[in-house]
Amino acid sequence: MGSLDTNPDPAAYASFAADVDAFRPLDADDVRSYLHKAVDFVYDYYKSVESLPVLPGVEPGYLIRLLQSAPPSSSAPFDIAMKELREAVVPGMTHWASPNFFAFFPATNSAAAIAGELIASAMNTVGFTWQAAPAATELEVLALDWLAQLLRLPASFMNRTASGRGTGGGVILGTTSEAMLVTLVAARDAALSRSGSNGMAGITRLTVYAADQTHSTFFKACRLAGFDPANIRSIPTGAETDYGLDPAKLLEVMQADADAGFVATYVCATVGTTSSNAVDPIGALADVAAKFNAWVHVDAAYAGSACICPEFRHHLDGVERVDSISMSPHKWLLTCLDCTCLYVRDTHRLTDSLETNPEYLKNDASDSGEVTDLKDMQVGVGRRFRGLKLWMVMRTYGAAKLQEHIRSDVSMAKTFEDLVRGDDRFEVVVPRNFALVCFRLKPRGGGGAMGEVSAEKASRELMERLNKTGKAFLAHTVVGGKFVLRFAVGASLQEEHHVRSAWELIKKTTTDIVGEAK
Amino acid sequence: MGSLDTNPDPAAYASFAADVDAFRPLDADDVRSYLHKAVDFVYDYYKSVESLPVLPGVEPGYLIRLLQSAPPSSSAPFDIAMKELREAVVPGMTHWASPNFFAFFPATNSAAAIAGELIASAMNTVGFTWQAAPAATELEVLALDWLAQLLRLPASFMNRTASGRGTGGGVILGTTSEAMLVTLVAARDAALSRSGSNGMAGITRLTVYAADQTHSTFFKACRLAGFDPANIRSIPTGAETDYGLDPAKLLEVMQADADAGFVATYVCATVGTTSSNAVDPIGALADVAAKFNAWVHVDAAYAGSACICPEFRHHLDGVERVDSISMSPHKWLLTCLDCTCLYVRDTHRLTDSLETNPEYLKNDASDSGEVTDLKDMQVGVGRRFRGLKLWMVMRTYGAAKLQEHIRSDVSMAKTFEDLVRGDDRFEVVVPRNFALVCFRLKPRGGGGAMGEVSAEKASRELMERLNKTGKAFLAHTVVGGKFVLRFAVGASLQEEHHVRSAWELIKKTTTDIVGEAK
Repeated sequence: MGSLDTNPDPAAYASFAADVDAFRPLDADDVRSYLHKAVDFVYDYYKSVESLPVLPGVEPGYLIRLLQSAPPSSSAPFDIAMKELREAVVPGMTHWASPNFFAFFPATNSAAAIAGELIASAMNTVGFTWQAAPAATELEVLALDWLAQLLRLPASFMNRTASGRGTGGGVILGTTSEAMLVTLVAARDAALSRSGSNGMAGITRLTVYAADQTHSTFFKACRLAGFDPANIRSIPTGAETDYGLDPAKLLEVMQADADAGFVATYVCATVGTTSSNAVDPIGALADVAAKFNAWVHVDAAYAGSACICPEFRHHLDGVERVDSISMSPHKWLLTCLDCTCLYVRDTHRLTDSLETNPEYLKNDASDSGEVTDLKDMQVGVGRRFRGLKLWMVMRTYGAAKLQEHIRSDVSMAKTFEDLVRGDDRFEVVVPRNFALVCFRLKPRGGGGAMGEVSAEKASRELMERLNKTGKAFLAHTVVGGKFVLRFAVGASLQEEHHVRSAWELIKKTTTDIVGEAK
Repeated sequence: MGSLDTNPDPAAYASFAADVDAFRPLDADDVRSYLHKAVDFVYDYYKSVESLPVLPGVEPGYLIRLLQSAPPSSSAPFDIAMKELREAVVPGMTHWASPNFFAFFPATNSAAAIAGELIASAMNTVGFTWQAAPAATELEVLALDWLAQLLRLPASFMNRTASGRGTGGGVILGTTSEAMLVTLVAARDAALSRSGSNGMAGITRLTVYAADQTHSTFFKACRLAGFDPANIRSIPTGAETDYGLDPAKLLEVMQADADAGFVATYVCATVGTTSSNAVDPIGALADVAAKFNAWVHVDAAYAGSACICPEFRHHLDGVERVDSISMSPHKWLLTCLDCTCLYVRDTHRLTDSLETNPEYLKNDASDSGEVTDLKDMQVGVGRRFRGLKLWMVMRTYGAAKLQEHIRSDVSMAKTFEDLVRGDDRFEVVVPRNFALVCFRLKPRGGGGAMGEVSAEKASRELMERLNKTGKAFLAHTVVGGKFVLRFAVGASLQEEHHVRSAWELIKKTTTDIVGEAK
């Protein structure tokens, strides 16, 4: 801490306000100058990111050895921070923007989104109530309604319909997890209320349901909301449904619970699971859930974006019968983090559980009931102006370009899939639904060939070697007990030649591994 | 939806990849061009925001009348979005960046923070695990440790201490609400476990405690985490403690609960309440809570930033005996939204409740136990690279400038307070602790003068008229049954003359109101 300890007596500051060199942290000229440096950095970064190792070769704790461990006591030119960013931070980044990034899901991005985010962070409004930022609230609501139209969601999910303000609506949140959490809480409170529970006493009777392929964050959100761990049902799926949730199995489990006196509260269906892009049949699951009065939420975080294309929209069939749906433009709709859109059919079911009304936020507009105060549809109070970037993306690119973007990624994934299928050392493990290809080295019988165990070992080895090259980054999963490589196409700088290069690298590395094994 | 319906058959897209004008949403030249336009906007905005009405005079639904209600089907030059931003959105903004903004708490900001945010949104990494973004994880941890040093937090809250990796640590979250929620869940699970509860069965015996001045989001977070509404204790405060929580009262309530068989789980203390900037005595409250084994959290969202100055640090005395503390640099430490720093004394107490371990995120670094996977300290999985802007703020301005910034705001608030005290029509209602002045028109006895009721009416009228001028925006609160105007100093473009101008406006408007009443 050093010099901080030498701060003089408080009394010494009495006259500092007269300082002619007063500190002006938001001086417009400084802002412009710093931002121009940042823009130059961004330009150089996009121009060069392809040549950087996707996955850095740094060891845990590397950064603290490069940067000072105590905060500076005095100011420094902004160039110092930029220099340290370039020299210490960038070499330790996993480059999600690299066209050689094929791991997880891509975090797609665009010029319009980044510009929107920049303006939002400069305006820095906190739109907890309509009054606190009318335009931010209304633009967010408009952007959500636009996206709802692109997705052909029923009018019941829209803030505004042809006949005026609707009963449904949306909100932009930070993560799918938050969307799940707030709807789980609303469903929980409704179930407690309809089962006549006194306070939380009935919580141990409430049950929730999802396929075993559902994102782990769902099971975490259930625990956060206080559901009993013993009542969180993870329903097995298998290859016979391509790892989608079988409605007959859901019915069986829900009926058994009902017979045992449990109160079915919530069913989470997924369109495009993280592991293998499985799709749960929304409409059929909603029909089952309806028998038990359970809330149905659709998690379409990744694949929801594809549903702006008519040829993918059928994956949302039945959405008019669910209670809520969330999807994340920060995954596949060219909008930088964070931006998760949650739509609910009846906003009051959310706000009944989430509303607060402290004196210091009271105002005529809120009192009138004419406006949406978005704080009442989320966990927190403060909120960024995320609607701006989402609106700018749709305003600038329009439906046609956004559809083209989805189709381009899917086409590249199909190219990769065809390459894999054309090499008999590999197999595609589950059908490709969107832009994710799940494949592995194929076990084979016969003398000297690879059995199941050595094929898995070779697949693991393949992933590790690929990731160490810095020329590609793939993640893995386990589907149906099989270790599988996930090749997720779609990083926004990616073009077909990157996919083809990655495939060449995969082939060559595989040849090395198989050769060494002999 | 119009033209969207006319999309041709999917088969028609088979060959689109050969399109020579392929859509490149992240083309470096486009990014630079869009960002330069955005920077120009930001520059003009900061230069002109002072002249814009702080609170816009728009009616609910104004924006939908200016912008098209259906999403565009085709692309448009980015200038169109910028034009609509200027002409439709800006006129409906509440300008938090205006130097005439005195409402709520200021959302302070700086050139370094905005530049950091821009770079983070361009890199667009998703640092859920260390592997997914080593530098983002390590820079966040480093920034948190720097801030901990500025705040003189005990080493037990730091990720790294002089002797290596500590048991405590921090994480950057989006809001104080999330900090409360995740610590409430950790405390809940620990209390259930130590009281021998089977699953959630014991939840109805758990109790939580806070002063009635605690932010409403705390009580909401308790409900989200499943605490029984009947067990959430809001303890009355009064003028005798300047609305801080009296440890003797806390003891009384906790003891009564313990005697009745409840399990004390969590106490939330606030340093700088939203309503009036009251300060709960942390150390004394921690001593009470310790008798019952309850988790103690300190919410220093706003005033925590002031504690980087030695003359304010005493408000954190006793922090070494609490379990967690959160504060938000997005409020008062020049860091644009969102940035809430949560520190816990034992990170395992958080991760035990929040950890997930899906197959597709497994990696050697996580398995080694050598790294922090920050997803296990928050609600969601995805996360922005928020550490960059916070680090850039400290790296560029250093402790001295940051202290100067706090002191400048406090000095301006003191100036305003002196002006209010110098006019006998007004009274300062609670002592000013930081940069918030709570005042009202003073009721007086005697012939023809204002009683309590008409003084309140006049204060309300004053606020409404001021806010309608567009030249100032103040919010209100109710403290001890009194309607009070909150004058929050500190918007980052604010200088003393803005404060003095606002005071002149307040005096003049009051004269008008009092004159009319006669």
